[in-house]
Amino acid sequence: MAGRGLVIVYTGDGKGKTTAALGVLFRAWGHRQRVIVLQFIKSGRPPAGEHEAADRLGIEVAALGDGFTWLSKDIEQTASLATDAWERAKATIVGGEYDVVVLDELTYPLQYLWVPVQEVIETLRARPAHVHVVITGRGAPAELIEAADLVTEMRLIKHPYREQGIPAQKGIDF
Amino acid sequence: MAGRGLVIVYTGDGKGKTTAALGVLFRAWGHRQRVIVLQFIKSGRPPAGEHEAADRLGIEVAALGDGFTWLSKDIEQTASLATDAWERAKATIVGGEYDVVVLDELTYPLQYLWVPVQEVIETLRARPAHVHVVITGRGAPAELIEAADLVTEMRLIKHPYREQGIPAQKGIDF
Repeated sequence: MAGRGLVIVYTGDGKGKTTAALGVLFRAWGHRQRVIVLQFIKSGRPPAGEHEAADRLGIEVAALGDGFTWLSKDIEQTASLATDAWERAKATIVGGEYDVVVLDELTYPLQYLWVPVQEVIETLRARPAHVHVVITGRGAPAELIEAADLVTEMRLIKHPYREQGIPAQKGIDF
Repeated sequence: MAGRGLVIVYTGDGKGKTTAALGVLFRAWGHRQRVIVLQFIKSGRPPAGEHEAADRLGIEVAALGDGFTWLSKDIEQTASLATDAWERAKATIVGGEYDVVVLDELTYPLQYLWVPVQEVIETLRARPAHVHVVITGRGAPAELIEAADLVTEMRLIKHPYREQGIPAQKGIDF
């Protein structure tokens, strides 16, 4: 692909971070670029809209987490999945087989220090020139923002589920 | 589709607004919902990644504008295209044939008063219960935010093209 690959970060408390990453994917797929999504938190059970869409398109979406929440009982298991996921991400980024690599919700393992931010930054620096990397999640560390080319903060202005008690909806939220 | 349809607004100066709308589309398409994109500014020449991806998926993406910019010479032509586009949007929303209707960059015709915001709000109120509407663009008017269920402001934290002189890139920007 023409041009230098970018590091794009979608962060902030608002909704639309993963959604924007999927939009990048959709566009890139339209241009017949090679794309992959590695999800650090999602477990893939039940399959979300992006998994079904990706299946139908032949796009790889690997849900590498265990659905980690504040209520997770086995935090060691979660941490271990996150470091495994990062090893895979590292190989994927450096391997150069893909034009766009989405690291969905990578910020959480960074926040918990399961994945060292310095290692992420070194991996980004070591990537082949054509590789775009899109990282999503709340609370992106300052070092990551510093290393990124494009950073958008999604700010919550209005949220239907908090303010109006509307449940998450198929096709929109998952 | 289950649940009440939402009105989602992606606004702000940051990048990722149209991209997030495309992500909503991608997810909804994954769930085999019926989706359509009406673009108020884009002309469809040359075809962007979303047009190529949509073509490959059989998703309707109608570029109804003339690529309006601050340098447009024929502002009456642009305004007339915008009001025509809005008539089509209105019929599409109220018709209920689609589960997700994306109105890409609708905020610009609203800002120029070519499309009355009150009419947009009345149309949103009149939509069938299953219809989600996603509206993108900078400077969403307060009345529209008030009428929406979910509003995210994309805040620019870092922009490669402004800060580093990197040109827009195929697959990422268009």
